[in-house]
Amino acid sequence: MHLFLANIQENQALLPESEAHHAKRVLRLTIGEQVFVTDGKGHLFEGILQAFTSKSAVVESLKPLPNLQKRSYKIELVVAPTKQIDRIEFLLEKAVEVGLDAFYPTMTFHSERRRIKLERLEKIALSAMKQSLKAEKPEIHDLISFEDFMQQNHFSGQKFIAHCYDDLESHPLKECILPNQSYQFLIGPEGDFSKDEVEMAIQNGFTPISLGNQRMRTETAALSCVMAAHWLHD
Amino acid sequence: MHLFLANIQENQALLPESEAHHAKRVLRLTIGEQVFVTDGKGHLFEGILQAFTSKSAVVESLKPLPNLQKRSYKIELVVAPTKQIDRIEFLLEKAVEVGLDAFYPTMTFHSERRRIKLERLEKIALSAMKQSLKAEKPEIHDLISFEDFMQQNHFSGQKFIAHCYDDLESHPLKECILPNQSYQFLIGPEGDFSKDEVEMAIQNGFTPISLGNQRMRTETAALSCVMAAHWLHD
Repeated sequence: MHLFLANIQENQALLPESEAHHAKRVLRLTIGEQVFVTDGKGHLFEGILQAFTSKSAVVESLKPLPNLQKRSYKIELVVAPTKQIDRIEFLLEKAVEVGLDAFYPTMTFHSERRRIKLERLEKIALSAMKQSLKAEKPEIHDLISFEDFMQQNHFSGQKFIAHCYDDLESHPLKECILPNQSYQFLIGPEGDFSKDEVEMAIQNGFTPISLGNQRMRTETAALSCVMAAHWLHD
Repeated sequence: MHLFLANIQENQALLPESEAHHAKRVLRLTIGEQVFVTDGKGHLFEGILQAFTSKSAVVESLKPLPNLQKRSYKIELVVAPTKQIDRIEFLLEKAVEVGLDAFYPTMTFHSERRRIKLERLEKIALSAMKQSLKAEKPEIHDLISFEDFMQQNHFSGQKFIAHCYDDLESHPLKECILPNQSYQFLIGPEGDFSKDEVEMAIQNGFTPISLGNQRMRTETAALSCVMAAHWLHD
């Protein structure tokens, strides 16, 4: 059964144009079919497709379902986008599938990529959320400079920055990550963060971490952090 | 510094044609440059590029280096290839980067894909191995039917099969995976294994596992198992 993001009011769900289009034209669903709908804020319903209008679709007879994937902890990724954008797209898809709450592409000193298509990332996140039947839509943010991110960040859980410098402080993630917290992971570009960036992050409350003696690409390191945080709670 | 797979004899490494081509034409390395070479069997050396011949390249002045990524445990993946092959390719790349010893694409009852390009998978694995500076080349096997795999499998560590059936036995991976073993993970296609396949695997010594209450795609489930096994040892 398919899940759609919808505006839910009283006992009716209205699919926005893109979702209605997907239901009608791509999946070729018909009136009377059962579907799942969510407001993207943790509420999940089963309902019946009642009508297609020109720019929407109506789902009625809503029955609330338990949100079995609800977590007690949040995970946020702050990642320097890779030169090849498909690597970041794949990371985002996988991270949302296993569970991600916010994604911040960030521009760092060694970043080669200085543009992203926010709309495309949002589409990927939405599609992964629907595919894995999640009732919570992750926040996808626009590209932000490392410095601006540091100034604007008000995350209150455990904050980690991964780097590969032998001569800067770092701790194995396994030794510093604690269960029942929330987690924000800062992952650098192909050429790593600059040392100044690592130090700025430390001053801003980030714990410097190493990810073992594997040399990992940006997207691999990010995904491995997300999976580690879930593994602690599974 | 770049790593190449080579035939290593005494104090000389000979790069096969494809590796020599990569060094000369793609990376544009020149005589006298320092490189890493490995035999793909755990031995790693630093050396100096001495000559390009028509079909090879010679690296000399070899100095052995410690294999810092050596592991005491093995990880093998037995995976039903996905309809979209790029998903399996991405999985293979990521798994090799974090550490994988063998990869068996397997044809199951619900498999939609019944062909793979072995050569392409080998290329991806080699490239990921080199990129992450590994001295061990994972075994990449050709497509094999589920039944034949079961008959021919002689893996002696912990063997797991992931499935999503509510009415078949399964245990959270976290509760049955033990440290300091080796691990073989069997991951099904888009439509899951058939119940018969799950039962055949159980009869063949596989422990049925569940991967939490997330609905994961094939490649995500496989990667999450590989990362979990590493997390146990990191």
